[in-house]
Amino acid sequence: MHRPFHFADRLCTAIERLGSPVVVGLDPRLDSLPASLVANCRETYGPTTRAAAEALWEFNRTIIDAVHDLVPAVKPQVAFYERYGLEGLGAFVRTVRYARAAGLLVIADAKRNDIGATATSYAEAFLGACTVFDRDVPSDFAADALTVNAYLGSDGIWPFVQQAQQHGTGLFVLVKTSNPSAGEVQDLLVTDRPLYEHMGALVETWGRDCRGARGYSAVGAVVGATYPEQGRRLRALMPHTLFLLPGYGAQGATAADVVGCFDAQGLGAVVNASRSLIFAYRTPPYAVQYGAAAYGAAARVATQHMIREIQQALTAR
Amino acid sequence: MHRPFHFADRLCTAIERLGSPVVVGLDPRLDSLPASLVANCRETYGPTTRAAAEALWEFNRTIIDAVHDLVPAVKPQVAFYERYGLEGLGAFVRTVRYARAAGLLVIADAKRNDIGATATSYAEAFLGACTVFDRDVPSDFAADALTVNAYLGSDGIWPFVQQAQQHGTGLFVLVKTSNPSAGEVQDLLVTDRPLYEHMGALVETWGRDCRGARGYSAVGAVVGATYPEQGRRLRALMPHTLFLLPGYGAQGATAADVVGCFDAQGLGAVVNASRSLIFAYRTPPYAVQYGAAAYGAAARVATQHMIREIQQALTAR
Repeated sequence: MHRPFHFADRLCTAIERLGSPVVVGLDPRLDSLPASLVANCRETYGPTTRAAAEALWEFNRTIIDAVHDLVPAVKPQVAFYERYGLEGLGAFVRTVRYARAAGLLVIADAKRNDIGATATSYAEAFLGACTVFDRDVPSDFAADALTVNAYLGSDGIWPFVQQAQQHGTGLFVLVKTSNPSAGEVQDLLVTDRPLYEHMGALVETWGRDCRGARGYSAVGAVVGATYPEQGRRLRALMPHTLFLLPGYGAQGATAADVVGCFDAQGLGAVVNASRSLIFAYRTPPYAVQYGAAAYGAAARVATQHMIREIQQALTAR
Repeated sequence: MHRPFHFADRLCTAIERLGSPVVVGLDPRLDSLPASLVANCRETYGPTTRAAAEALWEFNRTIIDAVHDLVPAVKPQVAFYERYGLEGLGAFVRTVRYARAAGLLVIADAKRNDIGATATSYAEAFLGACTVFDRDVPSDFAADALTVNAYLGSDGIWPFVQQAQQHGTGLFVLVKTSNPSAGEVQDLLVTDRPLYEHMGALVETWGRDCRGARGYSAVGAVVGATYPEQGRRLRALMPHTLFLLPGYGAQGATAADVVGCFDAQGLGAVVNASRSLIFAYRTPPYAVQYGAAAYGAAARVATQHMIREIQQALTAR
């Protein structure tokens, strides 16, 4: 699997080119968007899901324009679009296409999971092509990678791996998530090791036959930046697995918390932040200087600041 | 939480009224649908996702017409619609509305999972109403219950429980799934008990404050019918939890395998079958008598047969 379009290779190359392992989470919430943008959409389309969807799309377009030359990837959280039904998912489709056209990799954060033919259906939707009758057509939701939940074991992972191999796409399996209650299940001790370490070992196995030229496989892992010690241990246990680290910024993780998840070359991980970047216009220290009229510029500066923080922490270790 | 519209009460009442704990899985696959139905859609709409979606919708409508007076609920698997993008999800929306209008409960099998505001977004989409600006509007995907994956712990469950309580809807949390590799994660021994039993205990806890008049909570569990011994143990451990049992028929489970998941009154569980019912027209013993032209009638007879099998097994125990 040393094809040039291997997902892990594409991601590593983009990280090196930009000097940036930052992923911008596109998690728009109507009540956090600039009020005038929302009001305009409401005026044009009425108090409808169409208006909500148009607001999400316009917001995302501005954010993508503002950050596309700074980061390798964006990560739209599908729930924020699914919330508004078919109209909302239409905004998701437009967002994914626009981001990919701007040269960004897109990680669809959908945490899909199922088995067999059902898992294949999800994999075709997000990682492959849609087989309609006897033809393969591009899927509406086609992204570069997808987050996946592996509670169902390998029956629920192989169909995603297969699509990823065929299409040069990738997946990120939930191993240790960033939220406070993550440990209720993931930290349960299984023969003296927490469950998430067993999951990590499974993920490393699932990716064994789909490594790219850079040594990383198409099967990545979600590892919460909010648990730095666990991340450091998982980095050692999972040398061929790319980490997607959520929890930076609004959830509390800092640059010092993520450095242990990178390899010696400063690769092997991407760090996602959502609210602290896309809503920077309404939070200190950016709110005063930028404000709602310049929310794209605020997101750009906040992203540049996060990139510098991580670069400095990686240099200092 | 003794409101008459409590999900578990609605489900128990429907099961008793019909004498049937069977759920028909609406998992249409283009290559298993009657060829003439598919050909007609292709002729009208070309080789497009629109044509695929129209075929799914027409097929589902016929199945719903054929079984709506026999079973309390249908369970569309969202992946089979998401596979065809926005058009496919349009067929899902039409299917859910049609089934509910026919008096059926709809269990959306989407296995969604996330935390906090993200989980709330999924819960609004499937279990509640969609807040658009200052108004609540019905969600496109609004169903009566949703399957949920709890690998993220209670942060990922409370938002669903909250929406379920507000809207009289329910959820089914994956505890022990029906697939062969389920045990890779779910059977890991945690202080001498398999993980799925810990998960079962969590589910019973999560449902503690949302029990209906019949004693069952709005937080159900998915328990694979393919693991009867484990199901029997879980039934004892989880006295207030409704079980959704997949794996009947095509996956190999029989009536004898499911009886241990019912309570003494013959309530507490619903048994799903998909392929063996909706594609009965192409499988023995129904294929010869019915065939493609009478796929609805074949589904009806296969459903009646499955109901009798389970009734007899429950009587015989």
